[in-house]
Amino acid sequence: MSNHSSTSKQHNPKPKVAISLGDPNGIGPEILLKCLGDQAILDRCSITVIGPRSVFSFYEGRSGEKAVLQQKGLKIEDIAAPGEFSVRPGMISADSGKIAMQSVSKAVSLCESGEVDAMVTCPISKEAISMAGYDFPGHTEYIADQLGIKHFLMMMVSDHLRVGLVTGHIPLSSVSSRVTGVGIRRTIDIMARSLRADFGILSPKIAVLGLNPHAGDGGVLGTEDRDLILPTIIQAREDGYNLIGPLPADGFFGSNTWKSVDGVVAMYHDQGLIPFKALSFGSGVNFTAGLPIVRTSPDHGTAFDIAGAGIASESSLKKAIEYAVDIVQKRKKAVEIS
Amino acid sequence: MSNHSSTSKQHNPKPKVAISLGDPNGIGPEILLKCLGDQAILDRCSITVIGPRSVFSFYEGRSGEKAVLQQKGLKIEDIAAPGEFSVRPGMISADSGKIAMQSVSKAVSLCESGEVDAMVTCPISKEAISMAGYDFPGHTEYIADQLGIKHFLMMMVSDHLRVGLVTGHIPLSSVSSRVTGVGIRRTIDIMARSLRADFGILSPKIAVLGLNPHAGDGGVLGTEDRDLILPTIIQAREDGYNLIGPLPADGFFGSNTWKSVDGVVAMYHDQGLIPFKALSFGSGVNFTAGLPIVRTSPDHGTAFDIAGAGIASESSLKKAIEYAVDIVQKRKKAVEIS
Repeated sequence: MSNHSSTSKQHNPKPKVAISLGDPNGIGPEILLKCLGDQAILDRCSITVIGPRSVFSFYEGRSGEKAVLQQKGLKIEDIAAPGEFSVRPGMISADSGKIAMQSVSKAVSLCESGEVDAMVTCPISKEAISMAGYDFPGHTEYIADQLGIKHFLMMMVSDHLRVGLVTGHIPLSSVSSRVTGVGIRRTIDIMARSLRADFGILSPKIAVLGLNPHAGDGGVLGTEDRDLILPTIIQAREDGYNLIGPLPADGFFGSNTWKSVDGVVAMYHDQGLIPFKALSFGSGVNFTAGLPIVRTSPDHGTAFDIAGAGIASESSLKKAIEYAVDIVQKRKKAVEIS
Repeated sequence: MSNHSSTSKQHNPKPKVAISLGDPNGIGPEILLKCLGDQAILDRCSITVIGPRSVFSFYEGRSGEKAVLQQKGLKIEDIAAPGEFSVRPGMISADSGKIAMQSVSKAVSLCESGEVDAMVTCPISKEAISMAGYDFPGHTEYIADQLGIKHFLMMMVSDHLRVGLVTGHIPLSSVSSRVTGVGIRRTIDIMARSLRADFGILSPKIAVLGLNPHAGDGGVLGTEDRDLILPTIIQAREDGYNLIGPLPADGFFGSNTWKSVDGVVAMYHDQGLIPFKALSFGSGVNFTAGLPIVRTSPDHGTAFDIAGAGIASESSLKKAIEYAVDIVQKRKKAVEIS
């Protein structure tokens, strides 16, 4: 038995996960240290934290999490902070934006070179990275750009609900014109592939929400559901997808229908994020589907208002690490099967 | 004690509630009979049901709810059905639309004349009433029109959440242009008055949601939150309202913030209805605020697909009756106080 166990350990070594520290003035380093203080996390994966040693030391000095960085099996990938940089919790600065993005960039390199199996990103500040000269709306676009990937999908995942968005961070007034048949189909494509390879669901069933109230009510409350979404669904069904929709979003989330599908395609940000957050009760995680690497992140921001106060919760980051490990293992299994 | 009890009964007679049967071919008459079989409902109020006796007899004959219409204290306001009309569960017809609306019209009259204290409406079919020549998007507009009221507010209410919409049944592409400062202020005005008079909340706290993702993120994701909603909130605060907002809708419903307010102003249908239905778990009710009369309704439709099958749930209608009774009592109390 012990031989068998050690053999299976060799075949299934612990996944290696790189974690970027996020904005050094946000809650990222604090929640990261809190996670590292949890033995259950270190039992599941080998962790490499990426960021200036001085930043980690700063937060370690303030927290109850002493010497977590000296633990066995934990690697620190040190990044040189700009000479004059010192941590100021809550402050938005070009230097902090630069450190945050260098950490992300290093994590991508480690994934690409195969040194780690997955990356988890702590929250950055869009304002700070913009001050540092990074012209990206956020993490995800930067990572995709580094990898040369054009089409990816932000998915919110929890244990019972997975939601992908056809349109993302755009004004509500632009949504209708930005919802296209091509965009809907791409979202379905990437989501279905991801549900198979990353979540181990061999025949995923996907719900596609309508754009308008009551999914347009036969065209009376808007025509996109009937003229754009429905034909796209019909074509995708002919191509072998298991789909329902277009569904009125309020009835879908107000009944138990959402529990009967593996994934949900929402047309715009609030249509997907409102029910996801309301129904996942803080256990949600962001996952970028469609990338060659595995990347997850907690579903909250830098929380500058409570940075450095020691009160930030590490629960979403912990979930993000757990999902990264799960997805690495599911992908390996999918490769073995095929 | 018995004297005291009988005296207080004279001072607080049971509220009288008229209930329109809804579309005779929908689930309305069935769920109405089911409610009348519940003694707890009849203990709380005196009920007048409005509709053709032949329709009630049809459903009574099919159901386990025998002779509920013969109960003491129950009135039937008979409506003459068109000569050739016979109930056909699930069928959409001009005759059924006409009967449904005559029932609603009678309920309004009974409220206006003071014969009853409140009305509860079972679901109608927009298609059927349109075939019958009624040019109204729904119940609410028809009732307001009968009463000569221009500004009213559809509110969804449950025990823990009350949501009002600035815009309603319109295409998503029209929402941005239809959200106006005047409309937001009117919604706040009617909601605040209703929370005081109808729900007994003397100093209501109201949350106003943003229109765009992240409430516009400082204008990057849309300008309406900053340039339209925020100034309206600031002015309303100066006028004495207790308001928070504009709030990112996903974070609001994803945290416990929604539990800390008495009412929520949402900018459009799905923004309000998705979280309301997801979080009220089938116990929600529609209430029309801003009318001189009290009117509630269940939060579902005619359900033609299961009409006549005996399986429709009366729980939302029951809740609607209970809310109508509560609101009648709260209004009386508010009048006594002032």
